[in-house]
Amino acid sequence: MGKANKVVIIGGDARQIEIAESLLAEGNEVFLLGFDQWMRNVAGISKAVSDTDVPWSELDAVLLPVSGLKSDNKVEACFSSKELILQESWLKKTPQNCLIMSGIHTNELETVIHTVKRPLIKLLERDDVAIYNSIPSAEGTLLMAMQETEITMHKSNTVILGFGRTGQTIARTFSVLGAYAKVGTIHPSEKARAEAMGLETFEFEDLSTVVQSADLCINSIPAMVLPEDILIHFPVRSVIIDIASPPGGTDFEYAKKRGIKAILAPGLPGAVAPKTAGRILAKVISQLLGENQVEKEA
Amino acid sequence: MGKANKVVIIGGDARQIEIAESLLAEGNEVFLLGFDQWMRNVAGISKAVSDTDVPWSELDAVLLPVSGLKSDNKVEACFSSKELILQESWLKKTPQNCLIMSGIHTNELETVIHTVKRPLIKLLERDDVAIYNSIPSAEGTLLMAMQETEITMHKSNTVILGFGRTGQTIARTFSVLGAYAKVGTIHPSEKARAEAMGLETFEFEDLSTVVQSADLCINSIPAMVLPEDILIHFPVRSVIIDIASPPGGTDFEYAKKRGIKAILAPGLPGAVAPKTAGRILAKVISQLLGENQVEKEA
Amino acid sequence: MGKANKVVIIGGDARQIEIAESLLAEGNEVFLLGFDQWMRNVAGISKAVSDTDVPWSELDAVLLPVSGLKSDNKVEACFSSKELILQESWLKKTPQNCLIMSGIHTNELETVIHTVKRPLIKLLERDDVAIYNSIPSAEGTLLMAMQETEITMHKSNTVILGFGRTGQTIARTFSVLGAYAKVGTIHPSEKARAEAMGLETFEFEDLSTVVQSADLCINSIPAMVLPEDILIHFPVRSVIIDIASPPGGTDFEYAKKRGIKAILAPGLPGAVAPKTAGRILAKVISQLLGENQVEKEA
Amino acid sequence: MGKANKVVIIGGDARQIEIAESLLAEGNEVFLLGFDQWMRNVAGISKAVSDTDVPWSELDAVLLPVSGLKSDNKVEACFSSKELILQESWLKKTPQNCLIMSGIHTNELETVIHTVKRPLIKLLERDDVAIYNSIPSAEGTLLMAMQETEITMHKSNTVILGFGRTGQTIARTFSVLGAYAKVGTIHPSEKARAEAMGLETFEFEDLSTVVQSADLCINSIPAMVLPEDILIHFPVRSVIIDIASPPGGTDFEYAKKRGIKAILAPGLPGAVAPKTAGRILAKVISQLLGENQVEKEA
Ligand SMILES: NC(=O)c1ccc[n+]([C@@H]2O[C@H](COP(=O)([O-])OP(=O)(O)OC[C@H]3O[C@@H](n4cnc5c(N)ncnc54)[C@H](OP(=O)(O)O)[C@@H]3O)[C@@H](O)[C@H]2O)c1
Ligand SMILES: NC(=O)c1ccc[n+]([C@@H]2O[C@H](COP(=O)([O-])OP(=O)(O)OC[C@H]3O[C@@H](n4cnc5c(N)ncnc54)[C@H](OP(=O)(O)O)[C@@H]3O)[C@@H](O)[C@H]2O)c1
Ligand SMILES: NC(=O)c1ccc[n+]([C@@H]2O[C@H](COP(=O)([O-])OP(=O)(O)OC[C@H]3O[C@@H](n4cnc5c(N)ncnc54)[C@H](OP(=O)(O)O)[C@@H]3O)[C@@H](O)[C@H]2O)c1
Ligand SMILES: NC(=O)c1ccc[n+]([C@@H]2O[C@H](COP(=O)([O-])OP(=O)(O)OC[C@H]3O[C@@H](n4cnc5c(N)ncnc54)[C@H](OP(=O)(O)O)[C@@H]3O)[C@@H](O)[C@H]2O)c1
Repeated sequence: MGKANKVVIIGGDARQIEIAESLLAEGNEVFLLGFDQWMRNVAGISKAVSDTDVPWSELDAVLLPVSGLKSDNKVEACFSSKELILQESWLKKTPQNCLIMSGIHTNELETVIHTVKRPLIKLLERDDVAIYNSIPSAEGTLLMAMQETEITMHKSNTVILGFGRTGQTIARTFSVLGAYAKVGTIHPSEKARAEAMGLETFEFEDLSTVVQSADLCINSIPAMVLPEDILIHFPVRSVIIDIASPPGGTDFEYAKKRGIKAILAPGLPGAVAPKTAGRILAKVISQLLGENQVEKEA
Repeated sequence: MGKANKVVIIGGDARQIEIAESLLAEGNEVFLLGFDQWMRNVAGISKAVSDTDVPWSELDAVLLPVSGLKSDNKVEACFSSKELILQESWLKKTPQNCLIMSGIHTNELETVIHTVKRPLIKLLERDDVAIYNSIPSAEGTLLMAMQETEITMHKSNTVILGFGRTGQTIARTFSVLGAYAKVGTIHPSEKARAEAMGLETFEFEDLSTVVQSADLCINSIPAMVLPEDILIHFPVRSVIIDIASPPGGTDFEYAKKRGIKAILAPGLPGAVAPKTAGRILAKVISQLLGENQVEKEA
Repeated sequence: MGKANKVVIIGGDARQIEIAESLLAEGNEVFLLGFDQWMRNVAGISKAVSDTDVPWSELDAVLLPVSGLKSDNKVEACFSSKELILQESWLKKTPQNCLIMSGIHTNELETVIHTVKRPLIKLLERDDVAIYNSIPSAEGTLLMAMQETEITMHKSNTVILGFGRTGQTIARTFSVLGAYAKVGTIHPSEKARAEAMGLETFEFEDLSTVVQSADLCINSIPAMVLPEDILIHFPVRSVIIDIASPPGGTDFEYAKKRGIKAILAPGLPGAVAPKTAGRILAKVISQLLGENQVEKEA
Repeated sequence: MGKANKVVIIGGDARQIEIAESLLAEGNEVFLLGFDQWMRNVAGISKAVSDTDVPWSELDAVLLPVSGLKSDNKVEACFSSKELILQESWLKKTPQNCLIMSGIHTNELETVIHTVKRPLIKLLERDDVAIYNSIPSAEGTLLMAMQETEITMHKSNTVILGFGRTGQTIARTFSVLGAYAKVGTIHPSEKARAEAMGLETFEFEDLSTVVQSADLCINSIPAMVLPEDILIHFPVRSVIIDIASPPGGTDFEYAKKRGIKAILAPGLPGAVAPKTAGRILAKVISQLLGENQVEKEA
């Protein structure tokens, strides 16, 4: 168990609530900043009215939302009625080895970290977190696919682009439901893994042929892989779900012209399974706090 | 291929459109009654403005909706602005061996058939159709489960009641997605099949213990299997999806009192995958028309 | 738990040892007849040297081997150096309601039962037992297939005939390993179930076409489904494993002529997984003894 | 297609025959050295009686067995009655860019390559080949497991050590057959992937507890992971299959003392599915020949 840690959670959504509860359950002290509209009262979780309620100088970790810092150091805060802006001065008050945790890095965040010189951890860029997160991402993709089509996933012709951490889980999800899933990747070892898992694969250069019979196409490659000259081969009324980080990999404007329903779908884990998504983060945060403890003691 | 058949589709929803298009594609003549709000124009499909536009005396088959006939011989008609009432006189004009097809039987339908003496086929009561239909039913159940919970199906504790035609497909669906699926059935051979498929099972008499750790419970048994004294053991905030035909197998009133989200979910195939659901029916209708043809010729 | 039962096991193989140990573990008294070569000593299991060591008049059940009685009332006995012949006189000494259990029925067994008038239970003919047994049967089929071919099951073209209790488990087994499994059955509802499980199916009348690309064919239909005019379409060097009860469903002589390796494979559960096969029987025997107890008391 | 290549295959087993036939089918010229006992005659494949029958100066590639070169430059040759020794002089006669291909590297091979200065390709060390090869490896492991145990894999407690390229395929194979498969790995991202695939995992430090209920343990980690103080916790009569490259990761001597059946199982792909294993190699060899061609022309 070790000594309790003091953690402040600045902004976020339902996932942060789950994180707060998990950290509390493990004996830590949790402060929430930017949660004025969150109406539950949980013993051990202190809702800070303003930054002066946070014991900055005693903190072990500061948790920013999955989206990190936005322009002008704005922080996403679903449960707040007011705009929430991170002040560098807050972080400067923390101990030297206080961990700053964020989902992803952003330029604003890098700038702040450069100034305050505290260790930064980008949770979602860890391999294990990205893989665990691929599970709610795949379920979210599935949910959207079922909502946007009039057919069953079973026996649907589903083309999956990318077989990285998220693409692999998506492909498996559709395949086990009985979809005719075909995977496109440029990496020979990803192709080999897909086949070992019983999935059909195709050569990326054959994409324009493969999509001709697609009911559904799911893209997880963060690059323009579905430009006009590929889209032209899709059947009208087919559906594209693009989960690659914005702006995605699809020429959405052209898709629309051609009568293809193409949807950019960011933030799936938080949308479809905030509790699970929160738990994934909570688990790794706990572990990091534990390791930090050990180092400090040593 | 054989000779073209003449078929009238009376009322229904998006599934009937799919059926009309499938029958047309196989060379049949199709008439629609009760589709005044359906705005597409397809060569070969005749939208009847009134019953006088239908060549009753030449018909090979009359197709009623999946729900059959309702009270006062009302027919469900999603694409109609007016009430649609089946007249016995229409059926009396059809040839003696004109097939009357409906999804399920209802008392009203039995009464009409008793009078008009035409062969009645209850499509959804055929074993093969019920099994094919279990696929969109299972996907619809999954869709609802994902919408109603804040967790992933993966690693969720999901209890499935009933392992008949639909229960079996539902259990498989949740299990392949990584749920801890536990199946309850009173039939030893269904239990054996569940285990052979790699699913966990439990003794029905242990239900009150099993539900204590349930995140999700799906019922497919058309009998009161979730009464108050079982519901009392569910965790608060758990979710029940009851797909058994109305009134389902749950004490919904008590569930509500206890803070369990219990939902009766009829009509899943038509809701989640009308195209697939329509194709399932179209396939068996085609086959029946073919067989009828052969008999008439013989 | 109930009162201990007294059971005699007459002949059999490694499965009977497993049964003996299971029954003993549940508090029953077990006698073995025809096990002179079985050299372990287990407290509570009495090895009868001759029939006079068996307390016939106090028995609750008599267990014959899976194969039942053979000609001249011979009993298979792997662990015996001598021939073992069942005497009607033994059974006549048992109480009226002593259960006679056998795997399958044979004419000889029916004759004996007709004379001695004791209740007969054919364990393997129960639906649940046949389904549980399909698991070791499928693994045994897989073992043979891997031994007899030079290719992986993954991506092999495997044709499976029959989708009954055993065929269903076999098809699933090969399919999950990544085989291109194609199922042939004459029953529409079995076809529907196969498709719902994500398997490919074909019309039985297309069998001669389907086998043209088969690496492997597994038959579970107890009827001549692979006669000369079908076999002629198999590729040379393909492999047939016929698990239907002897004489199987293959024209073995013609297969040999054509250079097809066709193998009749009876008794798979006992061969590949005697322990599991024994436990399956032990479980149902226990259950039957329990029910018999209750009846006697009532 | 491109120009035909000239390839000599020096020694090997049934896999080399498959490679020869595949290369021939793609229009290449193939020479075999060390195949005097191979009795088939295939037009286009030249069986060299001695090295003087091989057109060394015109070769595009030299293929050594999967095992590479052994001590004193011995080459494994299953189809030869004589010892086969690779002579450096042969290789020196080949063109500068003639590819030397081997399964794995060995010290002897490195020495030869250092002298002759030809490009060396270690086929099995490529990521994609190792993954494709994991398929026959996993099936071979399964075959051995079924042969060495008396239980079904279904519901067996199977512990899998290592979740690299081969471990991942093995774990999936046992899990889809219904085994209670538990995966142990020290890598957090491999653990995450195992869980995303629906497998149970455990912390490596809990190994001594986990094995206490193991029926079967499969090791794919090339390090001493099953020493005496872990083995002591295995149940007697449990089975260990160690597929890690010799000497494996098990203290075999101690295992024997304790009554655990522990088996070192090298060379599985060639043993269980030589045809598939050969095809995997043939495919990548073809591809490499094609690429080499392109380079030469450029
Ligand atoms: N919408 C959501 O809720 C959600 C959830 C999770 C992930 N995502 C997003 O989905 C994307 C994939 O995430 P991930 O975790 O799977 O990442 P990943 O493991 O890096 O996988 C991406 C795959 O795409 C490949 N790739 C990149 N550029 C390519 C190109 N130009 N052509 C062909 N292949 C290319 C990568 O290969 P290399 O490794 O060689 O680059 C890799 O194999 C990211 O943009 C991520 O932000 C979105
Ligand atoms: N919501 C939807 O969209 C949708 C879709 C499909 C089906 N359904 C409904 O779902 C239900 C199941 O359909 P199905 O096709 O799976 O039917 P099914 O094959 O007959 O399965 C129902 C199972 O429940 C068992 N059962 C019936 N009464 C029971 C009782 N009192 N206690 C324990 N077990 C009992 C049945 O056993 P016996 O065979 O011994 O009776 C059978 O095993 C039906 O009500 C059907 O109308 C709804
Ligand atoms: N070798 C072994 O170790 C082993 C292990 C288990 C079973 N078996 C044998 O395997 C066979 C199948 O066992 P099972 O438990 O799966 O039996 P099952 O459930 O009765 O399945 C057999 C299937 O074959 C169908 N069938 C029967 N005759 C047919 C015909 N002439 N044409 C087309 N289909 C036909 C049956 O249909 P209907 O129901 O309409 O007849 C049924 O669907 C039996 O012979 C059994 O003894 C052998
Ligand atoms: N018997 C056969 O027929 C056959 C067939 C295929 C493979 N093999 C053998 O099987 C083994 C695995 O092959 P592979 O292709 O799966 O290799 P791999 O992808 O490298 O996987 C091996 C895994 O073991 C881990 N590992 C290595 N040393 C470890 C240690 N001391 N403690 C804990 N984990 C450790 C590796 O981690 P790192 O990556 O961090 O080292 C890696 O995750 C090799 O020895 C290979 O030669 C045998």
